Amino acid sequence: MTVTQAGEFGLIARITDRLATGTPGLGGDGQPSVLLGPGDDAAVVAAPDGRVVVGTDVLVDGRHFRRDWSGPVDIGRRAAAANLADIAAMGARPTALVVALSMPPELEAAWVEGLADGLAAEAAAVGAAVVGGDLSASPTLTVAVTALGDLAGAAPVTRSGAAPGDVVAMAGRLGHAAGGLTVLTRGFRSPKLLVEAYRRPVVPYAAGPAAAALGATAMIDVSDGLLADTGHIAAASAVAIDLHRDAFEVPAPMRNAGEALGADPYDWILTGGDDHALVATFPDGTDLPDDWRRIGEVREGTGVSVDGRPFAGAGGWDHFR
Amino acid sequence: MTVTQAGEFGLIARITDRLATGTPGLGGDGQPSVLLGPGDDAAVVAAPDGRVVVGTDVLVDGRHFRRDWSGPVDIGRRAAAANLADIAAMGARPTALVVALSMPPELEAAWVEGLADGLAAEAAAVGAAVVGGDLSASPTLTVAVTALGDLAGAAPVTRSGAAPGDVVAMAGRLGHAAGGLTVLTRGFRSPKLLVEAYRRPVVPYAAGPAAAALGATAMIDVSDGLLADTGHIAAASAVAIDLHRDAFEVPAPMRNAGEALGADPYDWILTGGDDHALVATFPDGTDLPDDWRRIGEVREGTGVSVDGRPFAGAGGWDHFR
Repeated sequence: MTVTQAGEFGLIARITDRLATGTPGLGGDGQPSVLLGPGDDAAVVAAPDGRVVVGTDVLVDGRHFRRDWSGPVDIGRRAAAANLADIAAMGARPTALVVALSMPPELEAAWVEGLADGLAAEAAAVGAAVVGGDLSASPTLTVAVTALGDLAGAAPVTRSGAAPGDVVAMAGRLGHAAGGLTVLTRGFRSPKLLVEAYRRPVVPYAAGPAAAALGATAMIDVSDGLLADTGHIAAASAVAIDLHRDAFEVPAPMRNAGEALGADPYDWILTGGDDHALVATFPDGTDLPDDWRRIGEVREGTGVSVDGRPFAGAGGWDHFR
Repeated sequence: MTVTQAGEFGLIARITDRLATGTPGLGGDGQPSVLLGPGDDAAVVAAPDGRVVVGTDVLVDGRHFRRDWSGPVDIGRRAAAANLADIAAMGARPTALVVALSMPPELEAAWVEGLADGLAAEAAAVGAAVVGGDLSASPTLTVAVTALGDLAGAAPVTRSGAAPGDVVAMAGRLGHAAGGLTVLTRGFRSPKLLVEAYRRPVVPYAAGPAAAALGATAMIDVSDGLLADTGHIAAASAVAIDLHRDAFEVPAPMRNAGEALGADPYDWILTGGDDHALVATFPDGTDLPDDWRRIGEVREGTGVSVDGRPFAGAGGWDHFR
């Protein structure tokens, strides 16, 4: 059955039924975050600290995903993850998602149901929920998600607070999704570590609020590539950032894939997006927990360097290039 | 200059500069709604009553708008209005918008700047602001907007509270945008009343919170057409709704355009979207202010009728038909 055969209101009913089976989000105080869910002109979400964090991220078919490389559940998880990671990178806990879905009329209704399942599953993993959406026909399948979050009394961690002498640290992993994309682009389906990472990011959501509590001075989620995104911190904070190549682990499957494909895994690590690692700066001497790994330092100056030298590999990601 | 020539980050800087010139939103308490604006992973918006209303609505080129019929400023205003009206229809005051914009690489950067101006202007008209967004390349120009709002202590007005004996009332106007669309479709550019209404809706935003304060039992914004949208109230509330044809004014330019084009203005009024009138139900005897016009009654039963009979004209809007 296509979405046209299901009809707009039939499709909304199918999606809403699936979302309703998920666990409702619970706030940090144990109270439900969703006060009014899907089915009305708008939803109502708890904002217990009197502020709400809001960000939006859009995925376009053929550009951010390919339906022959990823199933609808994985694409739903990735669309949710890209948005939930932005909330975590402010130091907040995600509470809710809304989704504007534009799709070709001949798309299978089952594909849309899978997408809804993936969105709901990734949201539920952080205690958030999909609370509403909009559907439209379009020649281009487009998934526009907006995420909300709660700061629980903390100050938001912006890109602009890094100071010379701070340490740079990361949580999560880098280069895995970019490696997986290279593997798939060359027509391979393994190593599984990389291909699965491309299909379904593993995002260190809880490390965001934890970093805020530790006194992080700046934070960002790595979606444009580590060099580009630390460059955003450097520019917003008017500082220089030096990264250490040795700080990054290259797991054996990544090293082997790089050798087989003639690619440098450090290009994936330093310029790849889609893993949604978190990068933050902390005052020197901060006792970092195990899920934060030190990768560099903040210095006087401008720009990003690797081991003191400008990086000579590929640049970051520009969505119009 | 195209968006590709401007580059992703150049385009973001251009848009952010334009948004910064707008008036920041002020909450009902006179405090700024925008605590952290564009330029970070996510924005921070005030939610003074501890809850936030959130809704999303997407506009697709060629389906919701045509660039040869409307300029970018008007399209921005319409995209904002469709979302802000959803917030008002819950009885809330809009506070903020975020925008996910997918666009062809050859689109003129000036067009995007115009769109941002329109979004910001419509938001500013209700004391809200554009606080963030995302840009992507896409073959299909798509404007996905999410709006936030504040209930200021009121209960949200849903679709499900209408009771037999309630009166049905509307604020705003109906049929104007649908008439304008018919006019443009036939290749005409007048009457101006209708064409301008299609290009730029005039939405009775303040009537939403006012209706909540008056004790409205159900409310919706008319985006699918009056019959379809009162049908949503009837279904959610498990009641019947009867509307009175004589309650609707047909202004002279609309009547004349209908005669010239062989169209029935009541089809536009009863089935057209895009004017974003608000329709609400109130307990009988509620003293309605001047901007709310009584248009029908809630009865026992199911479905929507006009003067006691099922409407024989065209149906409502299904985005996949």
